[in-house]
Amino acid sequence: MGGIEFLKGHGTQNDFVLLPDAAGVLDLTRERVAALCDRQRGIGADGVLRVVRCAALGIESAAEWFMDYRNADGSLAEMCGNGVRVFARYLVENGLERGPEFVIGSRAGDRAVRVNPDRTVTVHMGAARITGTSVAIVGGRELSGVAVDVGNPHLVSTMDDDVSGLELRDQPRYDHDLFPEGVNLEFVNVVGDHALRMRVHERGVGETRSCGTGTVAAVAATLHLAGTDTGSSTVDVPGGTVKVTVDRGDSTLTGPAVFVARGELDESWWNNLP
Amino acid sequence: MGGIEFLKGHGTQNDFVLLPDAAGVLDLTRERVAALCDRQRGIGADGVLRVVRCAALGIESAAEWFMDYRNADGSLAEMCGNGVRVFARYLVENGLERGPEFVIGSRAGDRAVRVNPDRTVTVHMGAARITGTSVAIVGGRELSGVAVDVGNPHLVSTMDDDVSGLELRDQPRYDHDLFPEGVNLEFVNVVGDHALRMRVHERGVGETRSCGTGTVAAVAATLHLAGTDTGSSTVDVPGGTVKVTVDRGDSTLTGPAVFVARGELDESWWNNLP
Repeated sequence: MGGIEFLKGHGTQNDFVLLPDAAGVLDLTRERVAALCDRQRGIGADGVLRVVRCAALGIESAAEWFMDYRNADGSLAEMCGNGVRVFARYLVENGLERGPEFVIGSRAGDRAVRVNPDRTVTVHMGAARITGTSVAIVGGRELSGVAVDVGNPHLVSTMDDDVSGLELRDQPRYDHDLFPEGVNLEFVNVVGDHALRMRVHERGVGETRSCGTGTVAAVAATLHLAGTDTGSSTVDVPGGTVKVTVDRGDSTLTGPAVFVARGELDESWWNNLP
Repeated sequence: MGGIEFLKGHGTQNDFVLLPDAAGVLDLTRERVAALCDRQRGIGADGVLRVVRCAALGIESAAEWFMDYRNADGSLAEMCGNGVRVFARYLVENGLERGPEFVIGSRAGDRAVRVNPDRTVTVHMGAARITGTSVAIVGGRELSGVAVDVGNPHLVSTMDDDVSGLELRDQPRYDHDLFPEGVNLEFVNVVGDHALRMRVHERGVGETRSCGTGTVAAVAATLHLAGTDTGSSTVDVPGGTVKVTVDRGDSTLTGPAVFVARGELDESWWNNLP
């Protein structure tokens, strides 16, 4: 044993293998990422977060550290509102950023973050833009919703009856003309002043325990229905609770970042991967 | 960070979190096992293998070490032909058993194992007993099979067409009068002299990448159909390849044991579990 350090953690149960690699020397092939994320033959995760200096990659940025995010299938990914919280907390707790506020580089550009005293992390998510209305069909029911763009497309349906009763195993239907590249579907109960409960069906994945941009879309949509475009709310998702603030031209997502374990990958296992 | 050591490994992709706890001091609640095995909020595994001295538990046994095996839901489990290989290799590579042959204690009694020079592990699985014939109905097809008892019930159907074409997502049907407590279903192609290919549907789980007793049942059943009750064969399962030898009154299973990582659980994560 020995060699390659890793941590496992999650943000509202969207989980990651984090690989510290300041100098950018790790030979992180697509096959190795896929093996790491494989839940039976590897560690298991929704994705890999490689921690590497921007300078080591030749990236000019206000950020010192680059979040090299890979999907579980080994492909490159841009940004993840849950992963960046885990990434930010790692940097501060390991003395790589002083905090509490700093900038993290990513393939989607620089992201401003703040590590709070209670160990939650706040991430600036950019603008949430209301783009119209549409209908989702779920388990034979027609649910009208508000379309929201948060860098990716969402359709948010608020409901009177409890979202926990929805049957989300089958693929819900939506308007393919309005969403030619698919859409993330959020189903929302207003459970109090500034408090939502939400389930989410992510395009290409199915129901997940959490979706960062989806929580921003849900708050923006419910504010819109209440006739305003600024405000904040907690959002309970199956994987935990986050807080979203929506403002004109920006939004923030605050939520937990949890570390479960740290250690070293088995050298012979790693070296025998393609 | 720091405190509780763990390893993650697998046997033909049946995966485990191994917890070294020689003195038996770990407070391993049902909730902690379930959290460890949870694939998003924990490490993720099919089960936990606690490594504890028989003496520490007050167990009188020829074995020095007891495999305290727990299911992913936190319940106690008896024996696992894939887990015991990982357990045995851990003991030898960490100097806790000299090897190559020794005995491991379990809730199903003592098991004799051998750690081979190529790092595979051979486990004695006890007798495989032919108990009759029956029929499984899978995707509308009726497949006749041989019923085999390997401590748990199996129905092995040999097929001419490739098992990879079988639709195993829906629950197959079987004779509930013959198998009142359910049955594990194996679907087998004979791919050469002493070579089988197999898929398995485990009762209460669904299709899995491997089932140790299922491979023993498959070899016993194909030997029986060939008119003999002793012999050996390789078995390709989705998670890898094992070798089975069937004899009168005993059988052995030889297969890989792979370590992926080792490290320490985050103390605050562990201490905040119920």
